[in-house]
Amino acid sequence: MINILVDCNFDENILGMDSVDVRLRKELERLTEKHKAYLGYPLAKDFTYQALAPFLDLQINNVGDPYTPSSLGIDTKEIEQEVLDFFKGLLRAKSDKTWGYVTNGGSEGNLYGLYLAKEAFPKGMFYYSESTHYSVKKNLHLLGVQNIVIRAQDNGEIDYTDLEETLFTRRNRPAIFLLNVGTTMKEAIDDLSKIKAIIKKFAIKDYYIHCDAALVGAMAPFHSPRPAFDFQDGIDSISISGHKFIGSPVPCGVVLCKKEHSDRVAKSISYVGTKDTTITGSRNGLTPLILWYALKTLRISGLRNRYNDCLDLAIYAEKSMNEIGVKAWRNPNAVTVVFDQPSDALCQKYQLAVEDGIVHILCMPGIDKLQIDGLIDDLKNDVRDVISISDKALYQENEDLLAAFA
Amino acid sequence: MINILVDCNFDENILGMDSVDVRLRKELERLTEKHKAYLGYPLAKDFTYQALAPFLDLQINNVGDPYTPSSLGIDTKEIEQEVLDFFKGLLRAKSDKTWGYVTNGGSEGNLYGLYLAKEAFPKGMFYYSESTHYSVKKNLHLLGVQNIVIRAQDNGEIDYTDLEETLFTRRNRPAIFLLNVGTTMKEAIDDLSKIKAIIKKFAIKDYYIHCDAALVGAMAPFHSPRPAFDFQDGIDSISISGHKFIGSPVPCGVVLCKKEHSDRVAKSISYVGTKDTTITGSRNGLTPLILWYALKTLRISGLRNRYNDCLDLAIYAEKSMNEIGVKAWRNPNAVTVVFDQPSDALCQKYQLAVEDGIVHILCMPGIDKLQIDGLIDDLKNDVRDVISISDKALYQENEDLLAAFA
Repeated sequence: MINILVDCNFDENILGMDSVDVRLRKELERLTEKHKAYLGYPLAKDFTYQALAPFLDLQINNVGDPYTPSSLGIDTKEIEQEVLDFFKGLLRAKSDKTWGYVTNGGSEGNLYGLYLAKEAFPKGMFYYSESTHYSVKKNLHLLGVQNIVIRAQDNGEIDYTDLEETLFTRRNRPAIFLLNVGTTMKEAIDDLSKIKAIIKKFAIKDYYIHCDAALVGAMAPFHSPRPAFDFQDGIDSISISGHKFIGSPVPCGVVLCKKEHSDRVAKSISYVGTKDTTITGSRNGLTPLILWYALKTLRISGLRNRYNDCLDLAIYAEKSMNEIGVKAWRNPNAVTVVFDQPSDALCQKYQLAVEDGIVHILCMPGIDKLQIDGLIDDLKNDVRDVISISDKALYQENEDLLAAFA
Repeated sequence: MINILVDCNFDENILGMDSVDVRLRKELERLTEKHKAYLGYPLAKDFTYQALAPFLDLQINNVGDPYTPSSLGIDTKEIEQEVLDFFKGLLRAKSDKTWGYVTNGGSEGNLYGLYLAKEAFPKGMFYYSESTHYSVKKNLHLLGVQNIVIRAQDNGEIDYTDLEETLFTRRNRPAIFLLNVGTTMKEAIDDLSKIKAIIKKFAIKDYYIHCDAALVGAMAPFHSPRPAFDFQDGIDSISISGHKFIGSPVPCGVVLCKKEHSDRVAKSISYVGTKDTTITGSRNGLTPLILWYALKTLRISGLRNRYNDCLDLAIYAEKSMNEIGVKAWRNPNAVTVVFDQPSDALCQKYQLAVEDGIVHILCMPGIDKLQIDGLIDDLKNDVRDVISISDKALYQENEDLLAAFA
């Protein structure tokens, strides 16, 4: 027997010097601390899933189609179907004409929707705004399809004039639209009714509409007024994250589509005795349990209350910032408050993502008024710091300029 | 406020009539029963991850590149890096020239490897044997690349003559090989040295080798002799499942590749402050913890013992079947025992996947001699049933034939 340790200079300390227990405790402490602190990400933090701990000792695998039993019995497909039914109801889909599955996150759902669109219209042109999440661009590249980025308005919504003008010169090609139902940075919602008006104006018959509703898909049904974004409004597919508004220790989500699209890619596969139209083979069976548990304990009324609380907090945060001179704003119904980038120290402390000089906080379930007040206090001091630093920098710059002429 | 319950006829019983506790208990009981019974899938079942239960209450997200810190601090990227280092050692990779990440399973790792190959050689032709897992075909279709299926030998290994003849007429195109290091049905290993000889014979300079080592990648280092399949043997990328030989409640895996390939697709993304070369955006941070925990507690010696125990059990199962007249066989070093399809009742009882009239059992960690003995007992009776039924059918057929001439 070849000794692998000699054979490849294997060093077991690759896995760290601490004992298992010590290391796990350190990781747990660090994560708990970081989990408390963040304000800049769309991730609910008010959950506990200890009821699901016993499932950590079992192989669970929802391989293939959630609606087709496989020869492997260790699945939670019945639970998964109930979760899908819940979202079908929420997104006003016709149950028997809609298909879907629980994904590993919003990006997988988008990849799947874009893949269905490509299968429907192999020569189609994909349109999406510059506010779209970067993973969409990545996935369009992976699919090898042609696409055009449309300008965004200042509030993050797609620029309908730019879309119309761009579409006008390409009326010969099928059009595939990726709509944002809540952009990543500003939680802007692209207006489906305006896009449908453009489609009608140019008499486009071959088109496909996919919604990236990662964050807002589970909140928009409670918006007042409810935006046009779901199956009754005429979409073909939609991707929603499970770990964002609902909350989950691991990324997950739901993708739903018209059944006619998934049927197109369906293939009977003898190996698992299942008709597999998903992207992966083996699929997570714990995430359906997580979503089911959350939805069953929250119920519709819980989701609505949760959204209203978030909205109230966002209104409070926006108002408080403006009161101390930080120019903050929100899109209508959004729980995202956008403002100018503070100091690096504050960005790190609250884990704020920066884009083009702006940052945002997301008033997600589990974030409370105290945390917002803490941020406001920090911003008060921070704003003064920034001003004094920039004043000093400007002074120095002017000094240097003058010195050059001295 | 619009009442959503009225608005979309929302029925909360979509999530089932049982209370949460009752339903979870039922699911747990059913899964535990099914978990005990299966013999036909490559899934270890001897694990417990209760030590990780506290992490179920935290948002963990390894968004983007595992080697680049993101502005979101709630990750287990350090743990993930250690897991990747472990596999780099196991697969004899140069640490600083190899990149990878923890995936949601073998299929995602294959998709990633095939994507890298497409980026390296956009006009390349993909070759793989007919024994390849069905998800590969699905993913090649998703990538929109040209590919040719090569015949397999009876033992599941690629037919080198067919590969050579097919390649000969396409020497003008870059060649991308997907090798099976353990086929799904028969655990056959494609011989990298023979494929490299063909590459050399035809002086092919533009080629890429990806290994689907879903099951066997974590066992092959302990094979005697060790097969040629890793980075020192000249591969470009490899996908290994974590839930199979190692064992995990959810599908997971590791993909490793030469850094030059992942650098090709690297793009700086401002939103998460991370250089994201993965397929998805948000990534699971619990699965790196699961793999780390398993590897840290098992260590190299544990993995080797585990493999040797599985191999001994497979040898025992093969011998026992042949002793009762069931023609069973194995590939060298394989823990998979292949035999003719028994009755539907037995296929269901042991969750055996059927393909072209054959089935297999996989002697995975957590399966013991008692279970094999149980199967042997069932097969004894089953074989007799099948014989007596077919005898009877043959008798009836002959009777009918004779009756026609009566």
